[in-house]
Amino acid sequence: MSKKEIPYKIYLEENEMPKKWYNVRADMKKKPAPLLHPGTLQPMTFDELRPVFCDELVRQELDDTTPYIDIPQEICDFYRMYRPSPLVRAYCLEKKLDTPAKIYYKFEGNNTSGSHKLNSAIAQAYYAKQQGLKGVTTETGAGQWGTALSMACSYFDLDCKVYMVKVSYEQKPFRREVMRTYGASVTPSPSETTEVGKKILADHPGTTGSLGCAISEAVETATQSEGYRYVLGSVLNQVLLHQSVIGIETKTAMDKYDIHPDIIIGCAGGGSNLGGLISPFMGEQLRGEAKYQFIAVEPASCPSLTRGIYAYDFCDTGMVCPLAKMYTLGSGFIPSANHAGGLRYHGMSSVLSELYDQGQMQAVSVEQTEVFKAAEQFARVEGILPAPESSHAIRVAIDEALKCRETGEEKTILFGLTGTGYFDMVAYEKFHNGEMTDYIPTDAELQAGFDGIPKFPGNME
Amino acid sequence: MSKKEIPYKIYLEENEMPKKWYNVRADMKKKPAPLLHPGTLQPMTFDELRPVFCDELVRQELDDTTPYIDIPQEICDFYRMYRPSPLVRAYCLEKKLDTPAKIYYKFEGNNTSGSHKLNSAIAQAYYAKQQGLKGVTTETGAGQWGTALSMACSYFDLDCKVYMVKVSYEQKPFRREVMRTYGASVTPSPSETTEVGKKILADHPGTTGSLGCAISEAVETATQSEGYRYVLGSVLNQVLLHQSVIGIETKTAMDKYDIHPDIIIGCAGGGSNLGGLISPFMGEQLRGEAKYQFIAVEPASCPSLTRGIYAYDFCDTGMVCPLAKMYTLGSGFIPSANHAGGLRYHGMSSVLSELYDQGQMQAVSVEQTEVFKAAEQFARVEGILPAPESSHAIRVAIDEALKCRETGEEKTILFGLTGTGYFDMVAYEKFHNGEMTDYIPTDAELQAGFDGIPKFPGNME
Repeated sequence: MSKKEIPYKIYLEENEMPKKWYNVRADMKKKPAPLLHPGTLQPMTFDELRPVFCDELVRQELDDTTPYIDIPQEICDFYRMYRPSPLVRAYCLEKKLDTPAKIYYKFEGNNTSGSHKLNSAIAQAYYAKQQGLKGVTTETGAGQWGTALSMACSYFDLDCKVYMVKVSYEQKPFRREVMRTYGASVTPSPSETTEVGKKILADHPGTTGSLGCAISEAVETATQSEGYRYVLGSVLNQVLLHQSVIGIETKTAMDKYDIHPDIIIGCAGGGSNLGGLISPFMGEQLRGEAKYQFIAVEPASCPSLTRGIYAYDFCDTGMVCPLAKMYTLGSGFIPSANHAGGLRYHGMSSVLSELYDQGQMQAVSVEQTEVFKAAEQFARVEGILPAPESSHAIRVAIDEALKCRETGEEKTILFGLTGTGYFDMVAYEKFHNGEMTDYIPTDAELQAGFDGIPKFPGNME
Repeated sequence: MSKKEIPYKIYLEENEMPKKWYNVRADMKKKPAPLLHPGTLQPMTFDELRPVFCDELVRQELDDTTPYIDIPQEICDFYRMYRPSPLVRAYCLEKKLDTPAKIYYKFEGNNTSGSHKLNSAIAQAYYAKQQGLKGVTTETGAGQWGTALSMACSYFDLDCKVYMVKVSYEQKPFRREVMRTYGASVTPSPSETTEVGKKILADHPGTTGSLGCAISEAVETATQSEGYRYVLGSVLNQVLLHQSVIGIETKTAMDKYDIHPDIIIGCAGGGSNLGGLISPFMGEQLRGEAKYQFIAVEPASCPSLTRGIYAYDFCDTGMVCPLAKMYTLGSGFIPSANHAGGLRYHGMSSVLSELYDQGQMQAVSVEQTEVFKAAEQFARVEGILPAPESSHAIRVAIDEALKCRETGEEKTILFGLTGTGYFDMVAYEKFHNGEMTDYIPTDAELQAGFDGIPKFPGNME
């Protein structure tokens, strides 16, 4: 096959797969702000973070100068079980849209966890195992992260305790059973198993839980249990580092066929997928070697980048975690109950927040009925049934391709298709039955969230 | 990469993908028995089958002499959206089992339909479109076939009417919503929309339906509606022809790396996957060029090959279809309610029945708790969460690998991993909770099924 013939799906050979992760912070002149100790307001040190995270992950979290970090052989071996993921040319979608644009997507749903989350889960489980730990704790909302971590822990024979937001635990019993298949214990949060859980239940009887609350419970359990550490599926620097495997594979595949994306689009909740997908491209841009239009897509019901404040804020409801500087809606903000998909975290990765603040990338928000329209249109021509989260990126990719139809521009559009929607059929059913509604928080509602952001000199200035 | 280094996953290049299906009947000296007209007991003619199936599919159904049949370009284009499927070396499973055996599986679950069914669905939809039809009708049980057909019809803009066994319709609402996402109409069967459905409801009020009943409804609707034909996801010769793409890809990949399988294992319900996987290998064996140990695996609760009778029988409950010669439990046989997975059809493909009768392949039956144990063991080391149907093959592959551990033999084992179990978590939950039971029909129960097999000279002799 000649270099210029683009197959439907580009799979790298095993010997072309990444052997190092890329740390975009190394190429940032102005670095992301460090985590702060909530008591002293001083940057968190290695020793202060060790009780919470594995040692090697703390090192990765704090390292903002090393550009490339070796992927351990054991993780490479695991990656080979489900990677490389395909880079797909959306020929059928292009034809359906009658657009001169060329559309590509990197599909991360071809593994049982159903999403890109596994890329970081296996790394975090590996380092926990290396340190001789018994197990890890975490939270999960929609369930993709919990599933991925369960798989990873099963592979390394680590115990895995998942706090699942109660409303998801009850509405998504199948997700729960997948985690149990991999041997994880799953507790609905808030629960009576932690002090912070008991307190929340006492203060808010009948609450159906939130991600911020489940994080607090998982952190408490990790720090109170001998041989356990806490792991997180998004937001953190270490997670973006591991997820760089998505972007590196994508860039290698595109370079191989001389494809240059003009627009790179990703959905953004905590930023794990978007940060991973764009990182090597962003590195080029930061080094002045190339220029791209990066677009973060978030739900209009949880608009941390487009309507949030760039400030230090709590990462969790129980306020047991360090403070992170990020675009935030306030740790008390919870998206309206009508919001169907994930992407419901109140804040955004510090790396992406800083890049956004520097004007290196754009952000847009979209409403969910439009998202599901795009999801269905995509499914019918491209075959893959996308997760609601991923469909935010599809919506904007389609919109950009339709703009090209108007202007006649032959732009190359790349987006991240983070996962599949097999466990989201309740939301699809609402959409099919015309019962899905949109919701945009009012300024007053946002202000109530902002009021919970901590006040100290230099913050929220 | 040298020829001998076996990657975790072998993906063919696009230019190595099959351009022809292989028709194993052409290499059979004694051909499978033809379909018979239930009234005249004469072989069904092209003209008699035309009101039920598309013309081109009737030709394929009746053609037992042409070895290779071109795959139309439009179908090749669609195949490229999700094929080639990976041939995976189960390194992690081998290590876990501590076996000298080499285990490979061909994984057909990497598409939204979640199974191999799409390979034939797209072909059948294509020929319907070519003939200028408005749409097609079909039945679905567990839902894999209905999902695959919905996707295929959506791609070709054909109407798709699915009769879904009522108990599945009610217990698997998510499957139903996937089909609706692709624009199909889904009716629980038996229904008031057909004469045969009304009759069954009158005779058996409160019935939760069966596959044989849903087939009758779908056939009636196709033959009574202008511009519609009936399509079926298994059992038929045409389906095995289309599914040969699985085996051809597998054989091409194995030949490329000089791998010779000693044992080839597939689960068997109607025979679509097993027939497709083994066909090019079986062709070699029939031509005397090679020898393989083929093993069909069926549930102990629905043991058509291992305990059935080789005779002409009805394909459906309403007896509106032609008679097929097959290993059968009788068209009235319904597996015990405790049976969790698919593979619940009372008969078996005529091609596979004849090959089995000739001693060209073996068959074993397995009980479902052992199947789910294998499924969970596989999921934990290989990552993929298998469908219950596929897990029948996993069970026997593991058993064969364990035998090799005893004997020290380094056998190469190949099995078909037909799909994923995302929509089967109710069954997994039962298994996790220790609520899953086994059931083996008694001889008396089987005899009741056999009593429904039609009596005529030469049948059941």
